[in-house]
Amino acid sequence: MPRLDFWYEFASTYSYLAAMRIEPMAKAAGVELAWRPFLLGPIFKAQGMETSPFNLYPLKGKYMWRDMERWCELLKLPKFTPPKSFPAHALLASRVALALDDAARPDFTRAVYRAEFAEGKDIADPATMHEILKKLGRDPAATMAKSGEPPVKDKLRANTDEAAKRGIFGAPNFVAADGELFWGNDRLEQALAWAAKH
Amino acid sequence: MPRLDFWYEFASTYSYLAAMRIEPMAKAAGVELAWRPFLLGPIFKAQGMETSPFNLYPLKGKYMWRDMERWCELLKLPKFTPPKSFPAHALLASRVALALDDAARPDFTRAVYRAEFAEGKDIADPATMHEILKKLGRDPAATMAKSGEPPVKDKLRANTDEAAKRGIFGAPNFVAADGELFWGNDRLEQALAWAAKH
Repeated sequence: MPRLDFWYEFASTYSYLAAMRIEPMAKAAGVELAWRPFLLGPIFKAQGMETSPFNLYPLKGKYMWRDMERWCELLKLPKFTPPKSFPAHALLASRVALALDDAARPDFTRAVYRAEFAEGKDIADPATMHEILKKLGRDPAATMAKSGEPPVKDKLRANTDEAAKRGIFGAPNFVAADGELFWGNDRLEQALAWAAKH
Repeated sequence: MPRLDFWYEFASTYSYLAAMRIEPMAKAAGVELAWRPFLLGPIFKAQGMETSPFNLYPLKGKYMWRDMERWCELLKLPKFTPPKSFPAHALLASRVALALDDAARPDFTRAVYRAEFAEGKDIADPATMHEILKKLGRDPAATMAKSGEPPVKDKLRANTDEAAKRGIFGAPNFVAADGELFWGNDRLEQALAWAAKH
């Protein structure tokens, strides 16, 4: 089965859109997904950006917030709710995502994005993580503890390093088995077609 | 008939893609188009950028060149040929476009983009403009002369000022009659649906 790596960042608005629609689309295309959270912070820094381009370029930011409202309507997602502080601190959610087994990651990821962009919750707050894990039937205390241990921390660092090596400069991204890189929620269709064909 | 303003820049790669596919799509959607060239230079400068973001952020630039190759294949356009110098100087082509009547602008625009991104020609060279106008059955000398006169220069400045007022920060853009702004070749479908509906 052809594989596509789904590279996402928990603070990224367009990663949210991709996360909410990728699974049925991948199934229909006969493509297996790997859900790979990474951190944009070091990637932006390496490009000389101290924060999100949506903050550095306010016109672009203003457009993005409106674009997200439209996309959420189109995708029949809950009314889009910008987080109080953008970009959110994604470190904790990313580590918890990697503390879970691969099969649990998609549901967890969607729950985090919903909390962040539909429910106005702070994903950097351990209480938010606790609540999500509990709802998903996971052991919050054990998972949170595991998320702070070296193997998980190393895994997130390795993901972020690999993202940089693959030429990733934003999020979300879709990377086919042959290394072909597609950036942005609006390239998901092309990425799946590529993965299925190559 | 609902109207959509198509805001494009002659140096912009993604404007090229939009220009090559917008006309039949607008016709199918029952939407009337206004072809509105403008200059990105002042728009970038107002955001603190001295050149294209694709030059300022090399990883993004590298990705864009590859993305253009893929898009040209998908749209069955000629093999994508990056111009020798990017971004091209769009002033002359923009003025010539506005020296022509509205009905002549779409064909002229597509011919300029083809010269720039498929034929490796310099669109800042008057000879390139001359050749394009001649092929389109226009009087090259008269049109070029008109393109240097104050009314045309003013029109281009007014277009660029209006683009800024509309919140435009890149290219291409599609603006519906109600002011709704869509940025990027990949928003063309949404923009047409919006224009047809509102």
